[in-house]
Amino acid sequence: MKLLTFQHQEQQRVGIQEKENVYDLVALVEQFNKENDENLSISNDLDRIVVQNSKTMPTIQKVWEWVKENKYAVSNATYSLEDIKVLAPVRRPGKVVCVGNNYMDHCMEQNVEPPKKPMIFSKWASCIVGPDDAIELPTDSVQVDYEAELAVVIGKKGKNITEEEAMDYVFGYTIMNDVSARDVQFEDVQWVRGKSYDTFAPIGPVLVTKEEIEDPHKLDIKLDVNGERLQDSNTKHLIFNIPFIISYLSKGFTFEPGDIIATGTPHGVGVFRDPQVFLKSGDTCRIEIENVGVLENTVR
Amino acid sequence: MKLLTFQHQEQQRVGIQEKENVYDLVALVEQFNKENDENLSISNDLDRIVVQNSKTMPTIQKVWEWVKENKYAVSNATYSLEDIKVLAPVRRPGKVVCVGNNYMDHCMEQNVEPPKKPMIFSKWASCIVGPDDAIELPTDSVQVDYEAELAVVIGKKGKNITEEEAMDYVFGYTIMNDVSARDVQFEDVQWVRGKSYDTFAPIGPVLVTKEEIEDPHKLDIKLDVNGERLQDSNTKHLIFNIPFIISYLSKGFTFEPGDIIATGTPHGVGVFRDPQVFLKSGDTCRIEIENVGVLENTVR
Repeated sequence: MKLLTFQHQEQQRVGIQEKENVYDLVALVEQFNKENDENLSISNDLDRIVVQNSKTMPTIQKVWEWVKENKYAVSNATYSLEDIKVLAPVRRPGKVVCVGNNYMDHCMEQNVEPPKKPMIFSKWASCIVGPDDAIELPTDSVQVDYEAELAVVIGKKGKNITEEEAMDYVFGYTIMNDVSARDVQFEDVQWVRGKSYDTFAPIGPVLVTKEEIEDPHKLDIKLDVNGERLQDSNTKHLIFNIPFIISYLSKGFTFEPGDIIATGTPHGVGVFRDPQVFLKSGDTCRIEIENVGVLENTVR
Repeated sequence: MKLLTFQHQEQQRVGIQEKENVYDLVALVEQFNKENDENLSISNDLDRIVVQNSKTMPTIQKVWEWVKENKYAVSNATYSLEDIKVLAPVRRPGKVVCVGNNYMDHCMEQNVEPPKKPMIFSKWASCIVGPDDAIELPTDSVQVDYEAELAVVIGKKGKNITEEEAMDYVFGYTIMNDVSARDVQFEDVQWVRGKSYDTFAPIGPVLVTKEEIEDPHKLDIKLDVNGERLQDSNTKHLIFNIPFIISYLSKGFTFEPGDIIATGTPHGVGVFRDPQVFLKSGDTCRIEIENVGVLENTVR
């Protein structure tokens, strides 16, 4: 299932995307109740739906099964993708955990040894924006760079999670552009400030629930700036895979539903190119991850 | 006003502390309504009260003014400090921003130059615990250290805040013990993982609203382990003061109500002592900040 947050006529809604159509979830539930004499309810807030997913997802699945057989009955709840504004699917994760140098090809381009254990840093969630939002260049950086990443959204609270059970803790996947002010990041030594300028974490367009992705370690991941392909890899090149990362980190802290893990970026980032490429006003940054979607943002 | 979160008979409540008494806020509002034929309401969640403080604090102030004249009427809402369990005042800040090397005496003990700009890192909020909770030693660190810090809680959303207006964005103050697994922190290079083990951010006991603290840059700050004084300084030794930190950071990101800034620790941390001192099971860590309170945690 592809879940998203969208806006139509100034109203923010949660939707399910199917090809070019987006179904307003709250309206689906209301229609389901009316036709089936039921009394289900659902939040209009995808952050909350994810945090409470053990309760909310059974409702959503029940209603969606009915919708698939009764599309004629939900035309009032149906929007065309082109008529809506897609927002960040979630906005208030408890933590945004990022893994650095996690693609073999990205280590080679920097001439660094692949890490022996995951290299962990963080972004503050206040920098999350959606697909139709612009990446805003700060005035105190001249080296703003892109990073295409597969992001994992956690669905279950847990600590000391084994690798074998780790995938039970995954709710789904989305795309993150781990935008980075390289000059600030490297001068600060601690990366969080240079990685957390407002608008530096575009995510979306959808949150794909995990059963839709057969193998998250077998997905093409590509990034274009102004139509030029600058990153082109596959998640099979991840040095530390998703179960390992979850297990490793959960030895120290508790994962909570809604937490986001950005799994790292492949080779081709701007700062290590020759000549270097940095984002400038007017650019368009487009990330595509197989079976997840396309995340496109302008720069200004 | 000293606001706190506490537990009595399994129920979590928000309170106002006055000397040895704690008043249950929701019960105060109910009693106020009854006696004054009013219809005010207040959340039983201090995170939410802080986030919505422009609406909630006028209610609280109005009720508190009445309570001060009518203590006889609120005996049912009154608890003795010794009969309750004090919890972390807030648990879900949008971000926990930490400032490193921000006391001149702490730079000298490390033989490092005082920083030319604030040295910024982060902790994940999932490690917040309260005054009566234990600091739990992780199995993969043998160098767990303490850091007494004055923490600022933000009360107003803002970006590009000037130093002159910065104090308008402060809601209040609390104490944080910035517990740090030194071996992990330094080996990782990025500090966030070694600083974010579960239980590594005891905070409290109260959230003191800003009007109670005449000058946050003139407060004694002390830490004892098992009764031995190991940190002893004053916030006048902060290299970058609170308005400067807020203004500096808000050039890059938006502050939101509930965000916490840990302003840094003075000299005397365990890793730079000779011989080194690290926390061991059974220790008691006690931080006192003048006019804010005492935060005491056992170690296990």
